[in-house]
Amino acid sequence: MTRYEQLAVTIRQQIEDDIWQVGDRLPSLRESVKSSGLSLMTVLQAYQLLESQGWIVARPQSGYYVAPRIKPFAAAKGGKKLNLSENVEISASIFDVLQACKDPQIVPFGSAFPDPSLLVEPKLAKTLASVARRFVPHSSLANLPPGNERLRRNISRRYAAQGIHVSPDEIVITAGAMESLSFSLQSATCPGDWVVIESPAFYGALQAIERLRLKAIAIKTDPKTGIDLDVLEEVVSKYQIKACWLMSRFQNPLCVSMPAENKQRLVEILNRSGIILIEDDVYGELYFDQEPPMPIKAWDKENNFMHCASFSKCLAPGYRVGWVAAGKHAIKVQQLQMMSTVSASIPTQLAIAEYLTQGGYDNHIRRLRRQLEQRQIQMLRAVSEYFPQSVKVNSTRGGYFIWLEFEPPFNASRLYQLALAKGISIAPGSMFSTSSQFDHAFRLNTSFAWNETQVAAMKTLGSLCRTLLKEYG
Amino acid sequence: MTRYEQLAVTIRQQIEDDIWQVGDRLPSLRESVKSSGLSLMTVLQAYQLLESQGWIVARPQSGYYVAPRIKPFAAAKGGKKLNLSENVEISASIFDVLQACKDPQIVPFGSAFPDPSLLVEPKLAKTLASVARRFVPHSSLANLPPGNERLRRNISRRYAAQGIHVSPDEIVITAGAMESLSFSLQSATCPGDWVVIESPAFYGALQAIERLRLKAIAIKTDPKTGIDLDVLEEVVSKYQIKACWLMSRFQNPLCVSMPAENKQRLVEILNRSGIILIEDDVYGELYFDQEPPMPIKAWDKENNFMHCASFSKCLAPGYRVGWVAAGKHAIKVQQLQMMSTVSASIPTQLAIAEYLTQGGYDNHIRRLRRQLEQRQIQMLRAVSEYFPQSVKVNSTRGGYFIWLEFEPPFNASRLYQLALAKGISIAPGSMFSTSSQFDHAFRLNTSFAWNETQVAAMKTLGSLCRTLLKEYG
Repeated sequence: MTRYEQLAVTIRQQIEDDIWQVGDRLPSLRESVKSSGLSLMTVLQAYQLLESQGWIVARPQSGYYVAPRIKPFAAAKGGKKLNLSENVEISASIFDVLQACKDPQIVPFGSAFPDPSLLVEPKLAKTLASVARRFVPHSSLANLPPGNERLRRNISRRYAAQGIHVSPDEIVITAGAMESLSFSLQSATCPGDWVVIESPAFYGALQAIERLRLKAIAIKTDPKTGIDLDVLEEVVSKYQIKACWLMSRFQNPLCVSMPAENKQRLVEILNRSGIILIEDDVYGELYFDQEPPMPIKAWDKENNFMHCASFSKCLAPGYRVGWVAAGKHAIKVQQLQMMSTVSASIPTQLAIAEYLTQGGYDNHIRRLRRQLEQRQIQMLRAVSEYFPQSVKVNSTRGGYFIWLEFEPPFNASRLYQLALAKGISIAPGSMFSTSSQFDHAFRLNTSFAWNETQVAAMKTLGSLCRTLLKEYG
Repeated sequence: MTRYEQLAVTIRQQIEDDIWQVGDRLPSLRESVKSSGLSLMTVLQAYQLLESQGWIVARPQSGYYVAPRIKPFAAAKGGKKLNLSENVEISASIFDVLQACKDPQIVPFGSAFPDPSLLVEPKLAKTLASVARRFVPHSSLANLPPGNERLRRNISRRYAAQGIHVSPDEIVITAGAMESLSFSLQSATCPGDWVVIESPAFYGALQAIERLRLKAIAIKTDPKTGIDLDVLEEVVSKYQIKACWLMSRFQNPLCVSMPAENKQRLVEILNRSGIILIEDDVYGELYFDQEPPMPIKAWDKENNFMHCASFSKCLAPGYRVGWVAAGKHAIKVQQLQMMSTVSASIPTQLAIAEYLTQGGYDNHIRRLRRQLEQRQIQMLRAVSEYFPQSVKVNSTRGGYFIWLEFEPPFNASRLYQLALAKGISIAPGSMFSTSSQFDHAFRLNTSFAWNETQVAAMKTLGSLCRTLLKEYG
C-alpha cells in the first residue's frame, strides 16, 4: 500500500467506527498534514480516493464531509467484536441483564433501576444549573473526602429526624451506595476473613466479596422475617466472622423487611462477637406505610455499624452521590476513597446539598412513594391475572421489586432467555447466589408506568411460564 | 435522667456536632413531638432547659434557634475522635499529605493537584448549567457504561489528531483516571500475579497492587530515560509478568519522559511476552514543547494496552470524569465498573462532551501549558537561589512537579514534619515506594501562582534543608 492508501484506510476505519459520523466535517487538508506528518499531495490523494469510493464528499470553500450511507442495523452497533473473559462469568451475565435496560425497546422488568421518569425533579435540575454557574476553583479541593460539609450536615439532620444520632464527621460522601458498600466491606475486613451475607443476596455483595478475596457464609433468609438468626447464632459460635452485610428494609431481591425484634436480636448477636454490620439501605426511603421501619443503625450504640445509602434511587439517578454513615470507621473509608475515585463528583454534591437545604425533597419523595405503591399493586394484580396459579410471590411495603418462584425444576434462566427474545427482561434468581438454589425464582421491577406494553409483556411472561411448566410436566 | 433531660442532651450533642449550627432554626415543637414520640410538654421542657443553659434562644412567633457561642478552635474541628487503623499505615500517611492541601493556610507544595485557579474555564461552567436544565430522565440509563457516546467520540477524535486510532467502542468513561487504572489492573490480572512498576512509582499503583493482592516488581527508573529496560528484559525472562503499570510522559514523581526509542523497545519486550501495559497518562496533555511526546499506546498494534487519562488535571477538577482506552479489554472494564461505581456522574460527562464539541478546549489547554511552564521555571529558580547547593533536581518538559534529592542520610520525612509545623507541605519520597530508598528525596508541586508567600515558603524550606544537612554532619 502507498502512503496515501494507508491514510485513506485509516480515515475509512475512523468513519466505520463512528469517530466521524455522517455529516461531520473531516479535519482540513492543512490539519491533516500537520497531524499525519505526510505531504499535502499525499493527504489530498487520500481524500480524493475516499471521495471516489463514496465515503466522503467535498464541499467547495468548506471542506470534506462524511457522506451519507446505509448501514445494516447490526453493523451500526459497532464493528469490532470485544471478547468476554472466561473468569468473570457471573458478572458477565449480570452485566448482560443490566445492559438490557439501556435499550428502550426492551420492557425493563429485569432492571435494577427505578423508572427514571419517576425521579424527575425540576427544582434539582435548576439547582445544579445555578451551582454550576457559581462553581469556584477552590471547591475542588475543599470538597475532597469526607465530601461537602453542608451535604453531610443535611444527611445528618435527616438521621436526626428519625431519632438516629449520626455526626456529620462520621459521614463520607461517595459516588453512590455501591461504592459506600465496597469501601465499608474493605475497611472492615482483610483478605481471607469470613463475612456473613443473606441468601439470596444483592449481587453487588457477592461481587465485592469475590473481589476482596473474602470467604462468605450465605445464611438462609426467610421471605417474612429476613436472615435466620438461629443459624446466625450457630455460625457465629463456630467461625470468626468479621462483618455482616445485609439489607434490613425492603431487601433486594427477596422483598422482605426484618421485624424490629429481629433487628434487636441481630444487634445483640453482632455486638457480642464484635462483628461489624454493613447495612445496605438504598431502598430505605421508599416505604409505603405511614411510618418507616427503622434501619438497624438506629440500635448501634457502639458506633461500629456502617449504614450505606444514596440519592440514586429516590432523587438523582446519574448524579452518583451516595454516602456511608461509617461511625468509627469514617477515616479508614476516606483513605480508601482517596486511593480509588478520589471524591464524588463535586458539582452534583453541591447541587444536592443546596436542594436539601432549600426544602422540597420531602414532598418529592412522598409523591414517589405513593406512585411506587400504586405500581406495585398493579404488577401484583397482573401476576395474579396472567401467571400460572402455582406462582409464589413475595412483596414488601416498600421499594420497587417483587420476587416470584415456581417449584423446581422450573428454570428462570431459561425464562430469561425466552423472554429476552420477545423483548422483555427479567432478573433471574441465579444472579443473586453463587449456588443454584434460586434457579427457580426471578425478580421483577414494578416501578414502570402501567400501559399496554406492560400489560402485553406480563401476559407474555405468564404464558412463557406456563409453557415452561408444561415442559417440566 | 428524665425524658426531657435525655432529649435536651440529644439536641445539645447535635449542636456540638454541628448538625445544627449557630443561627439555625431547630425543628418546631410540633415536628419534634412527631419525630421523638414524646409529649408536647416533655419537648417544651427540653427546649426550655436548653434555653436556660444558653444553647438555644427562643424567638417569639418564630421558634427556637441555636444561640451564638464561643468554641475553642480545636473543639470546633469535631468532637469525636476517630482512630486510624493499624493496617493502613502507608495509606494513612499519604492521606495526611493529601488532606493537608485542603487547608488554605498551608502552602501546598506537597499537593497532588494543580492550582485549581489555573483550571477555571467559564465556558465549561456555562455548559454544565445548560446541560443541567436540559437533563432528561432516560439519560441516566442511556449513559451507563461504557458512558456517554458523544464524549467517547470526542476523545476518540483527540486520539486521531495525534495519529492514534482508538475506536469509541474501546473507550470506557470512568470517575477519573485513578478508577481507570484500578479497573485496568484488575481486568489484566488475578490475585497472586506479578506486576512490573517503576521505582519510584505513583503511590496509587502501590495501593492498587496491595488492594488486589498482586505481587509487584519495582524496576529502577532512570531520571533521564525512565524504567531500566535491561533490568526489565531480565525480569521478564525470570518471572511470568502479567501487567506493567507505568507513566511514559512526565512521570510522577520522578519527572522523567521516556525517549521514543525506549518506548519502542519497551513495546517489543511487552508484546514478546504478552504483557498488558497499563499506561497512566494523566499529565500527557500538559507538555511544554511545541510537539508532545507520544504515549506508548501509539505503538500498540495488538490492542492489548490500556491507556488511562482524565480531565481532572487539565480542565475539570471535581467533575470526576476520566477514561480508559482499553482496547480488547473494554467489556471487562465495563463489567468491573457496573459492580463498583456503576457509572461516572452523568451531568458532568454530558457537560464535557458538549464543551469539547463546541470547541475552545485547545485554547484553554494551550494557555494552561504556558502558565505551568512559567511557574516551573520560577520554582526551579527559587530552588537554585534558596536551597543548599548539594540539592539535585529533576524536572521534565511537562506536568507540574519537580523532584529533589539530597545525599542520604538526609530524611525527607523529617523535612515534611518540620515544614508542616511551619505551614508548608511537601511530598516526601517515602510515599512513592514500599522500600526506604527514596527517603532522601521529595516532590514539590510547581503549579501555584508565584507570590510572597511562595517565596517565603521556599526560603523556609531551603533553610530547613540546611539545618537538616548540618545535623547529619
